[in-house]
Amino acid sequence: MKVKFGAVPLVYPIPIVLAGANVDGKPNFATLGDVGIMGVRPPLVAVSLNEGHHTTRGILQNSTFSLNSPHTGMLAAADYCGIVSGRDVDKAALFDTFYGELDTAPMIRECPVCLECRVVKEFAIQHRHIFVGEVVQAHVDEEFVTKTAEGFAIADMTRLDPILYALDNRYYRVGPAIGQGYHEGNTVRRIP
Amino acid sequence: MKVKFGAVPLVYPIPIVLAGANVDGKPNFATLGDVGIMGVRPPLVAVSLNEGHHTTRGILQNSTFSLNSPHTGMLAAADYCGIVSGRDVDKAALFDTFYGELDTAPMIRECPVCLECRVVKEFAIQHRHIFVGEVVQAHVDEEFVTKTAEGFAIADMTRLDPILYALDNRYYRVGPAIGQGYHEGNTVRRIP
Repeated sequence: MKVKFGAVPLVYPIPIVLAGANVDGKPNFATLGDVGIMGVRPPLVAVSLNEGHHTTRGILQNSTFSLNSPHTGMLAAADYCGIVSGRDVDKAALFDTFYGELDTAPMIRECPVCLECRVVKEFAIQHRHIFVGEVVQAHVDEEFVTKTAEGFAIADMTRLDPILYALDNRYYRVGPAIGQGYHEGNTVRRIP
Repeated sequence: MKVKFGAVPLVYPIPIVLAGANVDGKPNFATLGDVGIMGVRPPLVAVSLNEGHHTTRGILQNSTFSLNSPHTGMLAAADYCGIVSGRDVDKAALFDTFYGELDTAPMIRECPVCLECRVVKEFAIQHRHIFVGEVVQAHVDEEFVTKTAEGFAIADMTRLDPILYALDNRYYRVGPAIGQGYHEGNTVRRIP
């Protein structure tokens, strides 16, 4: 029996990222779970931020941003960057920051994976600002990368150990692998 | 040391949903990980589908869609719905489907959480079609809902047991809770 829970966007759990932007020329980071992959070819991501957020202003200034995926050992810092504003606190001082091919998408060296992105679409819905970014380059700690015939492969998620979040306001760790994409479904009998 | 991995949208892991739409009046479902929460107030989600997908046509026909979150016991069916097309197979026959407040957003009763959504923004980037939806109603199995003073609370993610996916092409289970939102960061010393 289903309960009408209300108009709540229960997609769960969601990966936590630190979104980076230069605001007035200085790096700033905001923790958010309002993020998603929007395609692999072309490599698209979407993020949503409050219009009043300091980071939003930086993304609008430069049309670039970064997404940095913290590991669970960075939980306190990640949560902190979602509590305080870059208007009040220099959050970049918490991290070793670097730039890649774009000059205005600051990244966090402590994060195993950092993406630098160029905005290809942006719009507002009520007080939310949504940015679709094309990934220009992914920077990954070498210990999580394997060279393959086709290019690179990424390590098992339990090694990358990302932080997940859900609308029960809890953070979670990723659990064990349970199957292979485009393979588990082969056991399903085709409906005639 | 970081490796330049290429232009790959490494946001990880991502929640797997079955997106539902009526195509030519008949329910169809597509498995995708290209999904994200885009805000809680207003309750927004975004999904990205290939322009040629059968489900894409249905969303464009009705400007509505659903997001259904399978549990790990539904892994084979979920993977299957990402392999075959609704053009060839009646995927709705795999599930007990129902409708909520919208007449054209078919949902899956076997999924613990189903969201019915109205499209508030849509656009194409190359061959991807991106839809931003406002959640009209979330339908949740009562065993995962607790009544609180403020309304409803959702159960622990390990009970909901969702399917995660990552670009290593593996499915994962969610692991244990590791902290509380807007709380873990209190241990971080404020940078003056």
